[in-house]
Amino acid sequence: MPAAARATLLSRMPAPRHLVSIDDLSLAEMEAIFETAKRYSEDTRAWADVARGSIAATLFYEPSTRTRLSFESAMLRLGGGVITAADMSRSSASKGESLADTIRVVSGYADAIILRHQSEGAARLAAEYADIPVINAGDGSHEHPTQTLCDLYSLWIERGRIEGLDVVFAGDLRYSRTIHSFAYALARFRANIVCVPQPGFELPAYVVQRLREEFGVEPVRAEAGRLGELASKSDVLYLTPQKPHQLSLFTDPKGLSVDHVDAVYMTRPQTERFKQEAQLDETQYLQLGQRQMAAESLRDAVVMHPLPRREEINADMDGDPRSIYFKQAARGVPIRMAILASLLGETDCLKGEPVAQSPAWDAQREGLVCPNENCISHTEARHVSSKYRLASRLPLRATCAYCSQAIPFGAVGCSTSRLYHLPDSRDLRKIRPDHLVFFRDAAHAEATGYQAAANVGSAG
Amino acid sequence: MPAAARATLLSRMPAPRHLVSIDDLSLAEMEAIFETAKRYSEDTRAWADVARGSIAATLFYEPSTRTRLSFESAMLRLGGGVITAADMSRSSASKGESLADTIRVVSGYADAIILRHQSEGAARLAAEYADIPVINAGDGSHEHPTQTLCDLYSLWIERGRIEGLDVVFAGDLRYSRTIHSFAYALARFRANIVCVPQPGFELPAYVVQRLREEFGVEPVRAEAGRLGELASKSDVLYLTPQKPHQLSLFTDPKGLSVDHVDAVYMTRPQTERFKQEAQLDETQYLQLGQRQMAAESLRDAVVMHPLPRREEINADMDGDPRSIYFKQAARGVPIRMAILASLLGETDCLKGEPVAQSPAWDAQREGLVCPNENCISHTEARHVSSKYRLASRLPLRATCAYCSQAIPFGAVGCSTSRLYHLPDSRDLRKIRPDHLVFFRDAAHAEATGYQAAANVGSAG
Amino acid sequence: MPAAARATLLSRMPAPRHLVSIDDLSLAEMEAIFETAKRYSEDTRAWADVARGSIAATLFYEPSTRTRLSFESAMLRLGGGVITAADMSRSSASKGESLADTIRVVSGYADAIILRHQSEGAARLAAEYADIPVINAGDGSHEHPTQTLCDLYSLWIERGRIEGLDVVFAGDLRYSRTIHSFAYALARFRANIVCVPQPGFELPAYVVQRLREEFGVEPVRAEAGRLGELASKSDVLYLTPQKPHQLSLFTDPKGLSVDHVDAVYMTRPQTERFKQEAQLDETQYLQLGQRQMAAESLRDAVVMHPLPRREEINADMDGDPRSIYFKQAARGVPIRMAILASLLGETDCLKGEPVAQSPAWDAQREGLVCPNENCISHTEARHVSSKYRLASRLPLRATCAYCSQAIPFGAVGCSTSRLYHLPDSRDLRKIRPDHLVFFRDAAHAEATGYQAAANVGSAG
Repeated sequence: MPAAARATLLSRMPAPRHLVSIDDLSLAEMEAIFETAKRYSEDTRAWADVARGSIAATLFYEPSTRTRLSFESAMLRLGGGVITAADMSRSSASKGESLADTIRVVSGYADAIILRHQSEGAARLAAEYADIPVINAGDGSHEHPTQTLCDLYSLWIERGRIEGLDVVFAGDLRYSRTIHSFAYALARFRANIVCVPQPGFELPAYVVQRLREEFGVEPVRAEAGRLGELASKSDVLYLTPQKPHQLSLFTDPKGLSVDHVDAVYMTRPQTERFKQEAQLDETQYLQLGQRQMAAESLRDAVVMHPLPRREEINADMDGDPRSIYFKQAARGVPIRMAILASLLGETDCLKGEPVAQSPAWDAQREGLVCPNENCISHTEARHVSSKYRLASRLPLRATCAYCSQAIPFGAVGCSTSRLYHLPDSRDLRKIRPDHLVFFRDAAHAEATGYQAAANVGSAG
Repeated sequence: MPAAARATLLSRMPAPRHLVSIDDLSLAEMEAIFETAKRYSEDTRAWADVARGSIAATLFYEPSTRTRLSFESAMLRLGGGVITAADMSRSSASKGESLADTIRVVSGYADAIILRHQSEGAARLAAEYADIPVINAGDGSHEHPTQTLCDLYSLWIERGRIEGLDVVFAGDLRYSRTIHSFAYALARFRANIVCVPQPGFELPAYVVQRLREEFGVEPVRAEAGRLGELASKSDVLYLTPQKPHQLSLFTDPKGLSVDHVDAVYMTRPQTERFKQEAQLDETQYLQLGQRQMAAESLRDAVVMHPLPRREEINADMDGDPRSIYFKQAARGVPIRMAILASLLGETDCLKGEPVAQSPAWDAQREGLVCPNENCISHTEARHVSSKYRLASRLPLRATCAYCSQAIPFGAVGCSTSRLYHLPDSRDLRKIRPDHLVFFRDAAHAEATGYQAAANVGSAG
Repeated sequence: MPAAARATLLSRMPAPRHLVSIDDLSLAEMEAIFETAKRYSEDTRAWADVARGSIAATLFYEPSTRTRLSFESAMLRLGGGVITAADMSRSSASKGESLADTIRVVSGYADAIILRHQSEGAARLAAEYADIPVINAGDGSHEHPTQTLCDLYSLWIERGRIEGLDVVFAGDLRYSRTIHSFAYALARFRANIVCVPQPGFELPAYVVQRLREEFGVEPVRAEAGRLGELASKSDVLYLTPQKPHQLSLFTDPKGLSVDHVDAVYMTRPQTERFKQEAQLDETQYLQLGQRQMAAESLRDAVVMHPLPRREEINADMDGDPRSIYFKQAARGVPIRMAILASLLGETDCLKGEPVAQSPAWDAQREGLVCPNENCISHTEARHVSSKYRLASRLPLRATCAYCSQAIPFGAVGCSTSRLYHLPDSRDLRKIRPDHLVFFRDAAHAEATGYQAAANVGSAG
């Protein structure tokens, strides 16, 4: 949106804070939110003046009753009002309205927008167009930051801290958005992760790579013995934010022993994906029950789950005091109260400087655009152009500024010199980020009119 | 749910009251609710502090706009807030979540749950898992207690009392859940019922049986003369809670004459069921209009209907001062205000001892389970097992503890002696209820390893 | 509805005001509403006591998220509560309930009804049956008066007045309900309209006719020169409420020159209708962008649009300070606040005498009924009979009292003399309006038993 438009549209100053990604929050801000949520939870009825007179709009392009009700409960507990579009896909969207337009219209009806959308990056786009706070309530398989905050808060409440905790991730670690977001957040808080995947559904390499490159997390082979039945079918991986030299304390040929677990985070098998892959027999699903939880190392581990669950946690766990999954869901209300109050400016949690986002540049010129077909930059092409951010300079890695997916390239050009380089070239560090142009390969670069840089000659 | 689970989940004490069945309320409690509703109705805007800060969640697994709006209006009139899932079947349920889990999650979002569900017994199950009050807003074709309360309240307002009133039930008395529930409630209040059925759609035998056995109601043939056109096509039946010896006053060869009717309760023909039965011509439907209401005995009878109506009440009745069906609907708001306020603990209506429910026992062991395919005990088999209650000891009758349907059996065993009896055996009275095991027949009992008791020998 | 029914149903007095048509409001009332809306808009949070304790029911028989959320936001800003049926067509309507019944039921749940319905005339019918205010939020392709008020208000805010303004209507002027309603309203305020239609989608003759007959508007050929690119494809028409003799000042062979435009109102092409007509290539659509807005006469014209827009306004206009379409949408909230507050009796805007509606008479006797298949008088035939109003006596024109469509006739009878006349007969003026009977033609009149009046003889 041109600056003039923004100036015209923005009547309230200063520009609002949004919650699009968990990365929008500093650790200190998250802890301030936890403290506020805890205060709210002590008597949820005592805060009905906090947002009195404010209105939140819940715009759900796909239905998600649980998330929506949790937000609406939070807003009502704060004394605010709610206007609801529980299934937008059946309504204006069908008249062909763009998300950018809908957001600008609803900005005139409410004081905050809670957005659920099937396209990755939708909430980032919405935040660009709204002059009121936007909260991401799930954008495709990208982010769901209030779920992550709720998970962190639950750990923080149960254990009194997050740093240094040992958290088991069990089940489908491959397709679960919740798990990936939680992993990054735990890494930021310097907690350790013990991966106990459903065989074939290990944590993806790109997640491990990001944990390593951005958060200094080291993966170590772990010894499954003390995890008992829980890990009997899995290769266990230990992910720790410790620096490598500290790890030498642990390493022995059998792997690191996991002696005491603080929490087991179980996930729902994404069976709709399983079926695309392999006919996995339902009986092979990892299940958590009293038998699996009998291991000595799990004696006081809390059991978490983002819900809804199906068969992956036995009903025999429901009565176990270690099971906190229903409490975890209930804690979504005070957490969302704290988020809403903070974004509406009714607490001091977010009154410092916002977390600096790395800048984003136009990625559309001659080169590649976001490869994710479900990215909002494609479905809303009328209002936004593909943008990228640099995730790292060496090796050079760029991600879509909306959906965070890596932009794959086999050659990189400089838009001023019109020369291209191969991805591993050290010369790339000298090019200004906004001059980078990404190509599929050298042929693509040459077809676009770029010439090989000196050190590419031999590869041509 | 094991005791440990309950202890973990319940944070608020004492255990909440629910409104699952009209049987959960004593007559005194109902009258207290009527008095409260009447006070509320005098100025519906004056009660906005009663539930301020409280939230009701309306969870509707099938849409029912009228019922939902009535509850939501009631909650707002009390100053409370509402979170709404108007069509749950399109949402989380599709992710395979059990009702028991949904209820436990939503318990963390609200202060009361208003549940509409397509399965019989759903509200009973919900009440077992919720630590906040559950109100049954219709569970399949089982119960809809707030509708019944609204009907009773409307009579009470119009006539000043319920005891001894003569109420005509007209139309489809066979399939109408509303009629059956209202009949039991009128019997408890010792009112009389005059049945004027659509031919072929008489009150079912099991309803008459229950009226007789549980409420001491006697059916008497009635003389249709004074009902005029209304009863011209029907055999009229008079159901009265009087003891038999009092009835001797009435009985003459022509049947009891109905001289004065207090109310005519008309029902919607359940045409979706009619079609399964017989091609009933629409012109044969019983219709209520000025002509039918011209009979002398109906001169000041109020006309009631649960709505929606179709053709069964002529528009020519809409302007008649006897027609109170729209008022009846409007009275749903103060009644639901009174119910919500009472369950939330904001009135004294329900502060006495709850009505004692007869205990429920496991019905699953070797024997029969609930025969109703639409019972929640089948669809939620992961969380609940089939349970029964004893409806009577002689003759022995057991009903499903969720959906209230009779459990049919041809033989009954004792789980300790491993002997079985025939249903009419007087020895059955000696067996502890929790030791009863129900079998299809003697062969079934023997196949399960039970032996015939001494007095069955000859039947073997 | 018979008088007795009304007396029975109406408990609150006096009869409420409704907003069914923009014609229900006098110019002075509209201006009072604008003043109130302006006061509200200065601080939307300052009015939370205006409607505290009141409830609005939004009944939407077809989804329209934008309109619904705007109304709900308005009600919440006034401190009121909202009960919502966002998609009634999926619910009670499917049980076959009439709108008249639904309205009477919901009247018992709320203090105002906001109705969206797919049938023309639905809101008029609802107003007949409700004893609380009904607001028309769109009835088929008939009226959407709060949209019109919002448009007028936006002009009034931007220009300080409406009278004498020059407003360009651009795009699809044929099928847009919004345009037609806005045209009538501008005519009442004595503003001028410059029509720049998509070729083939000119303002319909019946709209021009009504503007002329009811509002004294004269159409003049206009000269497109100063409208530049905007009008390059169109024949431009100038509609002015001036008396004809004043227009002689303008007329020259080239037509009236449009020197300065106050507002351009752009409409969405109703492509669903286009397709029925002709395969109009999307590239032929009139589009508004910087290029079209470069004409000198448009230098300070505000750009309006009822939204949602698709391609008809280029994204390059979004940042232009002349573009006020998002502001226009936002202004729907204070306007609807003012309307709600006025109808609920919380302001003085509507406390004078209501605008007198011309009376309506039964049109069903032997003659013609409303020709509009989508008129509520057909779909609710059980509760309403076709009624007409006289739009003019010479020439005789009658319109449906619900949907406002002209009743076409080729002969007109008198129900007392049983004689019929041809439509242009001056004798028709002598017949009492409630005695008029409309026939297709003379043959139809004769077949119904009417005889030709003296002056028709020759036509027989």
